[in-house]
Amino acid sequence: MEQYTPPITKLIEELAKLPGIGRKSAQRLAFHILDMKGSDVLELANAIVNAKKYTRHCKICGNLTEGDTCNICDNVKRDHSTICVVEDVRDISAMERTKEYKGMYHVLHGTISPLDGIGPDDINIKNLVTRLNSDIVEVILATNPTIDGEATAVYISRLIKPMGIKTTRIAHGIPVGGDIEYADEVTLMRAMEGRREM
Amino acid sequence: MEQYTPPITKLIEELAKLPGIGRKSAQRLAFHILDMKGSDVLELANAIVNAKKYTRHCKICGNLTEGDTCNICDNVKRDHSTICVVEDVRDISAMERTKEYKGMYHVLHGTISPLDGIGPDDINIKNLVTRLNSDIVEVILATNPTIDGEATAVYISRLIKPMGIKTTRIAHGIPVGGDIEYADEVTLMRAMEGRREM
Repeated sequence: MEQYTPPITKLIEELAKLPGIGRKSAQRLAFHILDMKGSDVLELANAIVNAKKYTRHCKICGNLTEGDTCNICDNVKRDHSTICVVEDVRDISAMERTKEYKGMYHVLHGTISPLDGIGPDDINIKNLVTRLNSDIVEVILATNPTIDGEATAVYISRLIKPMGIKTTRIAHGIPVGGDIEYADEVTLMRAMEGRREM
Repeated sequence: MEQYTPPITKLIEELAKLPGIGRKSAQRLAFHILDMKGSDVLELANAIVNAKKYTRHCKICGNLTEGDTCNICDNVKRDHSTICVVEDVRDISAMERTKEYKGMYHVLHGTISPLDGIGPDDINIKNLVTRLNSDIVEVILATNPTIDGEATAVYISRLIKPMGIKTTRIAHGIPVGGDIEYADEVTLMRAMEGRREM
């Protein structure tokens, strides 16, 4: 154990709790923080506190927002008849980057995962069902192509289909720029299944 | 640019300023912080503020300390007749890890670097000279084996030698576990120069 002062040791411990930051990185960051101007240190600390303090989940879709509802749900120019269901708020950012999708979102904040004891009531599914009025034309299930993601998509589609709403699943296949030679069997199988006429 | 709320964007920007943290890592860290418990977020922010607030440089040696002087300078069991001169407080930690050295330290907080306009008066040399009373038997120059580190060691040794104090330089050579085949010429040359009888 190093001979640091208690405040420095505490800082290193706190930084090392963050994901992807080991003890060495935490030390390097801590010493960098000690070398920073006092005002810059306060700015960093305030940014951490304020981000947590002023961020909540959109009442409608579960996206991150400062107010009650998020800027996607509030945007009247977007298509409010389509809902894209994702596992995590980060998936919204990824989707928005494509600049193609103009509909709404719904964030599940997780997946159904029986092995971890996470059932349908533990994720944001109930709110999704209450959103499904007669204005909704399509629900796109964009959960990850993992076992839990697939199971969640299947569960939701069984829930929605009886309501007569079109339910789709995003396509899985070889990534653009990817190499068929190195693709895993499951992806390749999915790519074959999803083939389209040219 | 992502569609995050201003507090989240601000947090990502602040985190991305830290060394070794790119935009992607900053985003991942920011979302992790948003997922953390409020109390844990405050603890992290406080650790950052307090480390900066309660850390200063030891009046004697320049090491980091909470009080006026550091726990190494205050330790009466250590050898106060030897001073090991290092560039940075982190070098003290490295040295202490060996558990061999029991003397004092002196932190220069940098090196003489004419190209960057850093002269002898810009680093903590003056305080070193004032420490050199008749009780000091040896000054070990443990600056890095870089051009600036060497130049600084040479400068200090010329300053101290006329005072009749033994001045030594740490040995440079092949690292333990290192491979001669892959050692650079300068290191190998140093290793040959520093050879000792067995």
